[in-house]
Amino acid sequence: MNRETALKLVKEQLTDHRYQHTIGVMETSILLAQKYGVDEKKAELAAIFHDYAKFRPKEEMKEIIIQENMPKDLLEYNSELWHAPVGAYLVAKEVGIKDEEVLNAIRYHTSGRKHMTLIEKVIYLADYIEPGRYFPGVDEVRELAKEELDQAFIQSIKNTMIFLMKKNQPIYPDTFITYNDLVMRRF
Amino acid sequence: MNRETALKLVKEQLTDHRYQHTIGVMETSILLAQKYGVDEKKAELAAIFHDYAKFRPKEEMKEIIIQENMPKDLLEYNSELWHAPVGAYLVAKEVGIKDEEVLNAIRYHTSGRKHMTLIEKVIYLADYIEPGRYFPGVDEVRELAKEELDQAFIQSIKNTMIFLMKKNQPIYPDTFITYNDLVMRRF
Repeated sequence: MNRETALKLVKEQLTDHRYQHTIGVMETSILLAQKYGVDEKKAELAAIFHDYAKFRPKEEMKEIIIQENMPKDLLEYNSELWHAPVGAYLVAKEVGIKDEEVLNAIRYHTSGRKHMTLIEKVIYLADYIEPGRYFPGVDEVRELAKEELDQAFIQSIKNTMIFLMKKNQPIYPDTFITYNDLVMRRF
Repeated sequence: MNRETALKLVKEQLTDHRYQHTIGVMETSILLAQKYGVDEKKAELAAIFHDYAKFRPKEEMKEIIIQENMPKDLLEYNSELWHAPVGAYLVAKEVGIKDEEVLNAIRYHTSGRKHMTLIEKVIYLADYIEPGRYFPGVDEVRELAKEELDQAFIQSIKNTMIFLMKKNQPIYPDTFITYNDLVMRRF
């Protein structure tokens, strides 16, 4: 699928603000893909569709999580997590994308998971650092992303966990597992 | 067992520095037990013996973890965690303490666990804030402990997790679970 067709399809699903964010993620993903040896077209496609399900009604997402046997613990955690696995499902079903690398990059772009692939890290990170993002710590991750993918990725996961802890919010277990997996294999 | 006998038994197992820490934990535990309605004598006993296994050789602790079917994942994480469950085992075996509330307070004083009891929180917290402790954030937890046990306890768990993350060290899953369990039930 070419970029124009993909962008047209996703634009219908998003607010203008979220569409602009998607453009930022797409551009950042391509740069990261070039730098870290990831298939650019796959990264572009995953980036374009990463938030495809962002504005689906919660009830629809909940039903899909249950019917499609997605991890049930998702329902106990913040519904902000749901659009990622539900998005992967809907992008396959409604858009016809079948590439598992692309779908997994969409599926894990919010939670992370153990043993993440390069493209999954690229999409997670692009979503975190695209130029429209402004929050404490983002510039540090942007700088790290120019040097070393894993360092940048670990920092973004840590920032996310600390952000949740400061608000006394639960951390989704896969996010914690992503952190432990990375530091136990690197240090 | 009276305090003098207990202290004599534990003194043989510890360095002078660690024995002084134990006295601090004992005194702090008694104050917290009085404030939060925990059996003082049990808190005192758990505090006195909480570091009983601290200076056992790693190999001995490792063997006990394997032979006694303790969670095997302990061996994948920092050996600093081992003295707590091994201590509970040795305090039962060598000192003859059979009270499960006391033993559990010893067992979970480093990792935490889901659904911690009051005495377990008291010992965890006393170990964290006893007067000999100096590190960033300890005074905030000391102040919280005067107001509300759970708030102080959550803060100490968060500080521990953030401390480990800053060093890129893994977090033992039970510690993470302790955090999530607390915030999911309180907020």
